[in-house]
Amino acid sequence: MTDSTPGQAKEIRLNMLEQCNPSFQAFGLWTHPRDVSTGYTSIDYWVEYAKMLERGLFDNFFLADVYGIPDVFEGRADGALKNGCQGPSLDPTVLLPAMAYATTNLCFTVTGSVTYEQPYQFARRFSTLDHMLDGRLGWNIVTSYLTSGAIAMGRDGLETHDTRYDIADEFLDGVYSLWEGSWDAGAVVRDKSAPLYVDPAKVRPVSLDGEHYRFTAIAATETSPQRTPVLFQAGTSSRGKAFAAAHAEGVYINGTSKEVVAGHIADFRKVAADSGRDPRALKFFMGISVFVDDTEQAAKDRHAEYLQYSSTEGLMAMLSGAMGIDLSQYPLDERIEFQENDSNRSVMEAMTRNNELTLRQALEARALNGTNLALVGSAEQVADELISWMDETDIDGFNIARIVNHETTQNFIDKVIPILQERGRYKAAYGEGTFRERLFGDGPHLPEDHPAAQKRQY
Amino acid sequence: MTDSTPGQAKEIRLNMLEQCNPSFQAFGLWTHPRDVSTGYTSIDYWVEYAKMLERGLFDNFFLADVYGIPDVFEGRADGALKNGCQGPSLDPTVLLPAMAYATTNLCFTVTGSVTYEQPYQFARRFSTLDHMLDGRLGWNIVTSYLTSGAIAMGRDGLETHDTRYDIADEFLDGVYSLWEGSWDAGAVVRDKSAPLYVDPAKVRPVSLDGEHYRFTAIAATETSPQRTPVLFQAGTSSRGKAFAAAHAEGVYINGTSKEVVAGHIADFRKVAADSGRDPRALKFFMGISVFVDDTEQAAKDRHAEYLQYSSTEGLMAMLSGAMGIDLSQYPLDERIEFQENDSNRSVMEAMTRNNELTLRQALEARALNGTNLALVGSAEQVADELISWMDETDIDGFNIARIVNHETTQNFIDKVIPILQERGRYKAAYGEGTFRERLFGDGPHLPEDHPAAQKRQY
Repeated sequence: MTDSTPGQAKEIRLNMLEQCNPSFQAFGLWTHPRDVSTGYTSIDYWVEYAKMLERGLFDNFFLADVYGIPDVFEGRADGALKNGCQGPSLDPTVLLPAMAYATTNLCFTVTGSVTYEQPYQFARRFSTLDHMLDGRLGWNIVTSYLTSGAIAMGRDGLETHDTRYDIADEFLDGVYSLWEGSWDAGAVVRDKSAPLYVDPAKVRPVSLDGEHYRFTAIAATETSPQRTPVLFQAGTSSRGKAFAAAHAEGVYINGTSKEVVAGHIADFRKVAADSGRDPRALKFFMGISVFVDDTEQAAKDRHAEYLQYSSTEGLMAMLSGAMGIDLSQYPLDERIEFQENDSNRSVMEAMTRNNELTLRQALEARALNGTNLALVGSAEQVADELISWMDETDIDGFNIARIVNHETTQNFIDKVIPILQERGRYKAAYGEGTFRERLFGDGPHLPEDHPAAQKRQY
Repeated sequence: MTDSTPGQAKEIRLNMLEQCNPSFQAFGLWTHPRDVSTGYTSIDYWVEYAKMLERGLFDNFFLADVYGIPDVFEGRADGALKNGCQGPSLDPTVLLPAMAYATTNLCFTVTGSVTYEQPYQFARRFSTLDHMLDGRLGWNIVTSYLTSGAIAMGRDGLETHDTRYDIADEFLDGVYSLWEGSWDAGAVVRDKSAPLYVDPAKVRPVSLDGEHYRFTAIAATETSPQRTPVLFQAGTSSRGKAFAAAHAEGVYINGTSKEVVAGHIADFRKVAADSGRDPRALKFFMGISVFVDDTEQAAKDRHAEYLQYSSTEGLMAMLSGAMGIDLSQYPLDERIEFQENDSNRSVMEAMTRNNELTLRQALEARALNGTNLALVGSAEQVADELISWMDETDIDGFNIARIVNHETTQNFIDKVIPILQERGRYKAAYGEGTFRERLFGDGPHLPEDHPAAQKRQY
C-alpha cells in the first residue's frame, strides 16, 4: 500500500456517483435541453454510460439507492414525483452485469441496505455479482432511513438510528459468515475424472442467532473472486463513524474545508487503528460537483446556465426525506423563527448557517451540488484544486456527482483528466485484477485484520 | 390468439430450460469430456449461451432456481455438493441484463419464489428487469420446498404445502397491486418544458394487509413495458393447478403419455375458464430431453455414451430434496418392502411403477432426463414426434432440458430446427414486441380477464 503513504504524492482515484433515476443530486437538471437522464430506463443508457467512464479511466461506478419514495415534504410524494427526485427508481443490482459485460476494467459499487433483507439472499446475490463481474464489485453498505421504505418493506415504521446500526452489525456478521466461513479455500475441486465437484469436507453451514436476523445455511454460491466485495460506507454520526472504521475499505465523505476534512480523516484512521485495523486500509473519497470549461469565465457561465434548470421543489423533497423534516413548514424568504421545542432547530440552523441565510438562500447554495464541494473553473484550476485537496487532507480520491448527463462527465474526462495525467497524478492505463487489488495493490480477499477474516475456518 | 385455435397446426414454441449451477436435470453430465458447464460462474458463458439460443430462434431462456442446497439425502448436503447438484447455485435474476444486452429477440423467464421475499422489493427488481429487457421478461412463479431454504431465510421450518399457496396468493395480490395499480397509464409525463416528470394525480400508494405480508407503498419504478411480466407456473397438485389456472400464462408440464397430457391440459383449460379466464390464454410447454443424431442408431449410441457419465448419487440428492424423502433409507437393488405406516409409500410406488422396478432401475430410467419425456432418434424422427405431441395433446411447445452443454442444444438447433421450419411448424424469423406480444399476438399488458387487471385504476 505504498500509494497511500502519507507525504507521498498519491494517484487520484475517481468514482462516478449515480442513482438509477431521472434526477439525483443536481435536482431539476433532467430538464436541461442537453440532459439525457430520462433514458435511464434503457439498458443501452447504462452500458454507454459505463463505456464512457471506462474511456475516462474512472476507477469505479458508484450507484446509490434508497428504499421508498421521499414523502416527508408536504406530507406526500408529489414533490418527489413531479421532479423525478429519487422516485421513480430502478433496482441498481440487476444493472451491473450488462455494464460489466461491456467493459473490462471499470469497477462497480452498488448500494445495498442491511435493514430489510435476509442475509442469505443478499449474500447469494452479491456473490453472484462478484462472479459475473470477475471480482470488480464493491458494496456500499447503508442503513435505510425513509419511513416510507420501512412501511413498503412490511415494517410498522422506522427503527431508531442506533437500532438500525445494531441491525447492521448483525447483518454484516451474517454475510461475512456466508462469504468467508462457509466455503474453504480449495473446496471447489471441479475434477471431471474423480468425479468431484465440491469437497464436502471443506464446506459447512454457518449460523447467525441474532435479535434481528437468524439463520443456518451453507452459502448458496461457490466462492467468488473477492469473497466479500470491497466495502464502502458513508458514516458521519459517531455510531456511523465507528461502524465505518470497523468495516469500511472505502469511505465516502463530504466537506468544504480542507482543515475539517483532514481532521475528520485523521480521526477516522485513529478509530480504525483502535479497532485493530491498519489505518491505511481505509480509502477516503470526497463528494465533488465539477463545473469546468476552457476558461474560468466560461465555467462560471456554464454554472449559471445550469442553475436556471435547478428545482427547489425537488431539492426540498429530497432533503425533507433525508432529514426527516418537512421543509414546507418553514418560510422560504424570511429568517426562520423557531417555535419552542422545535426538535429540528439544530439541523435547520446548520443548514442555514446559524440562520444567516433564508431557507431559499440555503437551498440555492445546494441547488446544483447538494452537500458536495462545488468546483467551478478552468481545467487547470480544477486540476490544481483536486491535487491540493489530495495533498492537504489525506483523501484518496473523489466521488464525482452527476449534473447534466452525460455532458458534465464527458467534459471532465476531456478537459481535466489529461492535465491530471500530465502531472503524474492520474493513471495513464488501468491496472489489473479485482477491485480490491486495483484499490490496495493487495488482495483479492480482505486482509487478516478485517473483522470478516475472523469468520474464516481455513 | 388465432395461433392456438384447436385443430389448426400450431407453431412450436421453444424454451431452453436451465439452472445456474454445474449440474441440473442430467446429473453427472458436467463430467462429460465435451461438457462446458463448469464455466457457469462466468458472464461470457451465459452471454454465449443466450446468443446460441437466439441463433436457433428459441423463444425463451427459462432459468429455474431453488433456495437452499438439497440436504435430505443421507441427512446432509454431501451428495449434492460432490455432484454440483443444485448447489452451488447462482442468483439467476442478476444474469439477465447481460444476456439481454447481447441479444435482441430472445426472451427470458426467471424463477422467483413468493415464499420469503417482500413483495415491494420483488416488484421493484422484476420491474427493473422488464425495463432492462425492454419487455422480454417472464416470471416463473414458485413456492419454495426445501427446509434448508426456509431455515436459510430465517424461518423455523417449511410451511405446509397449502399454506405455501396461501402465502403465494397474498404475494401475488401484493405485486399485482404494485405493477398494475400504483401507476396509471400516462403517469409518466417526462415533459422538460412544463417541467413535469410524473403527474402525481396518476400515482398512488397501494396496500396489502394480509396474514403473511403487509405493506403500503407507491411502486418504486415507473411502469415497465409489460407491467406484469409473462407469468409461468408448474403446478401439478390440485391446489397448484387451481393456482396456475387462475394466474399462469405459461404452464410447464411433464408427461410421457399423450392421452394423459391431453386430458391434463383440457382439465387445466376448464379450470381457467371456470375462474373467468379465456382458456386459450394459457400456453402449455412440455419438458423434453432430446438425444438426436444423423441416424436413429447414432442417436442411441449418443444416449448410451452420455449415460456413462450420469450420477446416481446426484440424482438421489436432488430427488430426495424435491420429494422430501431420504432415498438412502431404501435398498437400491431389491424390491422395496415398505414398513407399516411408511408415509412415503405412495410416492415411492409411483416412482418404482408400483414396485415393478428396483430403486436403481427407477433411477436409471430418469438418469438423463428426470421426469421429462426422452426423445432418442434421428432428426426426422424427433421432428415427427414433436409435431405429433403438438397435434395430439394441445400443447404449445416444449421446455428443452440441458444434457451436455452446449453440444446437445447446438445439435438440436443444427439438426431438428431446420426440419421443423421446412414443415412450417417453426418460425423462420423472430417476431417483434414484448414477450407477451410475441407469445399471444396481443399485449403488452395482461388481458382484462386476468386477476391482475382488477388492480388497475385507470
